[in-house]
Amino acid sequence: MKLARFETGGQAKFGRIEGEELIELDGSYFGSASPTGRRFALGAVRLLCPTVPTKVVCLGLNYRDHAKEMGKPLPQDPCLFMKPETAVIGPEEMIRCPEMSRQVDYEAELAIVIGRTLRQASPEDAMKAVLGYTCLNDVTARDLQAKDGQWTRAKSFDTFCPIGPWITDEVEPDHLDIELRLNGKVRQHSNTTQFVFRTAEMLSFISRVMTLRPGDVVATGTPSGIGPMQPGDVVEVMVQGIGTLRNKVA
Amino acid sequence: MKLARFETGGQAKFGRIEGEELIELDGSYFGSASPTGRRFALGAVRLLCPTVPTKVVCLGLNYRDHAKEMGKPLPQDPCLFMKPETAVIGPEEMIRCPEMSRQVDYEAELAIVIGRTLRQASPEDAMKAVLGYTCLNDVTARDLQAKDGQWTRAKSFDTFCPIGPWITDEVEPDHLDIELRLNGKVRQHSNTTQFVFRTAEMLSFISRVMTLRPGDVVATGTPSGIGPMQPGDVVEVMVQGIGTLRNKVA
Repeated sequence: MKLARFETGGQAKFGRIEGEELIELDGSYFGSASPTGRRFALGAVRLLCPTVPTKVVCLGLNYRDHAKEMGKPLPQDPCLFMKPETAVIGPEEMIRCPEMSRQVDYEAELAIVIGRTLRQASPEDAMKAVLGYTCLNDVTARDLQAKDGQWTRAKSFDTFCPIGPWITDEVEPDHLDIELRLNGKVRQHSNTTQFVFRTAEMLSFISRVMTLRPGDVVATGTPSGIGPMQPGDVVEVMVQGIGTLRNKVA
Repeated sequence: MKLARFETGGQAKFGRIEGEELIELDGSYFGSASPTGRRFALGAVRLLCPTVPTKVVCLGLNYRDHAKEMGKPLPQDPCLFMKPETAVIGPEEMIRCPEMSRQVDYEAELAIVIGRTLRQASPEDAMKAVLGYTCLNDVTARDLQAKDGQWTRAKSFDTFCPIGPWITDEVEPDHLDIELRLNGKVRQHSNTTQFVFRTAEMLSFISRVMTLRPGDVVATGTPSGIGPMQPGDVVEVMVQGIGTLRNKVA
């Protein structure tokens, strides 16, 4: 099952992807929805962020290779931070560099999209609440991250959370190649087998801290190879079995 | 103008407080709303959190006296962190201590409630977007705050953000007495003149990082005197000219 949000006639719609077609739904895939009968060629519509989160909960230092790169010990518990939903943009939308920062970095991540309310869940139950998986770029003002200590400002600027292009449940999240390309050149390349905390553990842990709502996103951390972007750059997050999230830096 | 949300007949309603009466509104005070004609005695209804935020943006170390108590230098820029909306509860609701923590602290704060969308605003323009002010308890798992480095887990447990009892615009936010009482005993007592960053500066700064939406809350930091709560404790945040936010620890 592949799910996408898209724009048609100035309105945001939910749809199911079948082959090269988008099957329009009359509601949201977070609730009940059935086909309206309208179909679109996938290449002919503008895709939107495939979810409408109330929050994006992120893990820091969750790849063994990235923790090494940052010179940090592996965390004992998942290290959580949040990005606000106001930072979320969709595929092909522009990432805007804020005046406050001199270094805006990419971070390729696998994102988990929550399908139903999750609270105090075991790892097994947590997996049942997953709608599917997509790509995410955890854009970060690296200079402000170091300066502030707390990561919130560095991670929360408007446009700093591209998500997409669609959601699929047809992958095994703990065994996926992940790659970031900057202007076509590979900058990050790893596999989610490098996770310190695996998908079920992350979700269970977060659900014992805060309730996750349908549409909420968990960003699973980034592998080694992080680095800066410049205006005009094209940045692509590719996750095996999902697809490519492409954005340009304004 | 004093504004409150309340429950009647199993439904959440918005209202205006006049004297000891609640004037029910037919919509939300974040949009357009006029009186329905129904009135309730203020003491006869259950008050809810007076806002429905998409996010709660908080300042760390924003009182000179608290920064001293924590042994930290005054921040050069506002130090931001966030609490998720899933942590929000209303007056008289129970604060629940999570299994993960051995020390749950109170933190009395003045909260700013945003009335309309705020983005890239000057200090002067930022003040025009304020709907009003209320009390907030920035409940914190102090042991996890120290352990994680990032404050998100420590600040984000469900029920860790009591807000209320109502919103008023009849105060001058940078000159208010603020007090916390634990089981009737004063534990924090200060005045918002101790702010490192004043209301207009905070809002302008945050709006240059992330868009604030109607209903969003800015928690302005806590003064010295923070400390732990135990099950059975009654905790009250009092802000001059606003009122008292009272919660019990489960």
